[in-house]
Amino acid sequence: MAAVQARMESTLERFLPAPQIVPERLHRAMRYTVLGAGKRVRPLLAFAAGELVEADPARVEVVAAAVEMIHAYSLVHDDLPCMDNDVLRRGKPTCHVEFDEATALLVGDALQSLAFQILAEHAVADGPEAQIEMLNVLAVASGSRGMAGGQAIDLACVGKPLSLPELEFMHVHKTGALIRAAVVLGARCGRGLDAKQLGRLEHYAKTVGLAFQVVDDVLDCDASTATLGKTAGKDAAQEKPTYVSILGLARARALAEELRIQAHAALSPLGATAVRLHDLADFIVLRKF
Amino acid sequence: MAAVQARMESTLERFLPAPQIVPERLHRAMRYTVLGAGKRVRPLLAFAAGELVEADPARVEVVAAAVEMIHAYSLVHDDLPCMDNDVLRRGKPTCHVEFDEATALLVGDALQSLAFQILAEHAVADGPEAQIEMLNVLAVASGSRGMAGGQAIDLACVGKPLSLPELEFMHVHKTGALIRAAVVLGARCGRGLDAKQLGRLEHYAKTVGLAFQVVDDVLDCDASTATLGKTAGKDAAQEKPTYVSILGLARARALAEELRIQAHAALSPLGATAVRLHDLADFIVLRKF
Repeated sequence: MAAVQARMESTLERFLPAPQIVPERLHRAMRYTVLGAGKRVRPLLAFAAGELVEADPARVEVVAAAVEMIHAYSLVHDDLPCMDNDVLRRGKPTCHVEFDEATALLVGDALQSLAFQILAEHAVADGPEAQIEMLNVLAVASGSRGMAGGQAIDLACVGKPLSLPELEFMHVHKTGALIRAAVVLGARCGRGLDAKQLGRLEHYAKTVGLAFQVVDDVLDCDASTATLGKTAGKDAAQEKPTYVSILGLARARALAEELRIQAHAALSPLGATAVRLHDLADFIVLRKF
Repeated sequence: MAAVQARMESTLERFLPAPQIVPERLHRAMRYTVLGAGKRVRPLLAFAAGELVEADPARVEVVAAAVEMIHAYSLVHDDLPCMDNDVLRRGKPTCHVEFDEATALLVGDALQSLAFQILAEHAVADGPEAQIEMLNVLAVASGSRGMAGGQAIDLACVGKPLSLPELEFMHVHKTGALIRAAVVLGARCGRGLDAKQLGRLEHYAKTVGLAFQVVDDVLDCDASTATLGKTAGKDAAQEKPTYVSILGLARARALAEELRIQAHAALSPLGATAVRLHDLADFIVLRKF
């Protein structure tokens, strides 16, 4: 895991415009946002899915970087005063606090363009048609029927009582869509999977995506700001519906454990090359930050 | 022109998610932003460039829609309180006034994803490799070394004295990059141009891009809010450097006229199929709103 994280750091560094290129402040802010922090969960998933299909790591690092840039942009916009209004992210002041709101807005906008640019500029599949499909996967996962749509559903839910299926629907979009894209794009970098294998992989992706969110909700009410590197307890403060607010802490923890077992079960017919995906389900559920 | 504008309206309508699809409010806001208004200058340029190369209009409408969605997203973000803080656009309340700031932020984000999605989902070139190149053209034009970078340069310039070359540098990025993309992508929908022809087309695009901005600056201080459909006089109010503030009104007008002549000159060796591009240079410079 540390090797993938280190590799991603240098890959992202290489894809981001140098800080001395005009406009310097924007490029500095983009680098501030993306580099030097983050668990890199989505890149880890992309690399693990890549191992399943013996993908060239030089391809996987491109799709992982593209997904991570979309993720980083979403955090910057999510932290803006008109959204969650947060001041701390990955242990550092958020982008709009360190720079300013207008710059943070443009950082997010430019990171989204850059994600598509690097996915268009590097051969990540056996042919250009497959590459266009991968560009489309990322676009759909990012858009109004994916991540951005999930944010909008989240906005509409603040202060409202939500059922468990409604909460799940929100998270399938808000965090699930991009986590699924990370797994699917990683797997598309290598030899093709058959429909059954792909189905299992998609089920795995959905399950760890939900588990990730359940654990996020548990940690938000259970861990300290110092441990998380972001403001703890803000869900309750903002009256956001969460797995903890709906299920209580104990049942939310039990749900995360159940999802971990489901994720493992989805992988078991895929054989030994799925070991990293298996371990990542553990990492996602058992993490402490 | 009216035919292209009407065609674009129905194309954009078709590509935008229906308002009854979840999240409804986001999709309503995206449609509010994109449909029913706008001069569609970039689509007009794409169609005119397409005529030069006998491109299939079914291809051109896709690239024109993608470019227009990038343009529309940039207006929504530009109008936000942390940027220009404007309340009127295309004769209607701006997106964050009609909906709310968080929704406007997501509208912009989702429109950007949608632009890349439609360009990935529709065959716009003779082969997938050419299509990937076109996706890349749009990504670069939108990003930190294109439009978003131009916005950042603009931010950095507020309240500062600027030389004419510095102002031009800003506009080559802020509005020029996407106008160039509209022309280049339109031309890539049809038979290939040789390097010399492409060079002429790029020169035309740069010239009309600058002319567009010079005329915008003239109109901002010369026309009324009612005519423009957006707040007039705001450049001066915000102490933004403009062609008018640097050159004065008379010399700015003369510069627009000079750029119109240059644009025509760039086209003249391209023959009769360039007539629409020729007329669009007139439209851009002689427009009253």
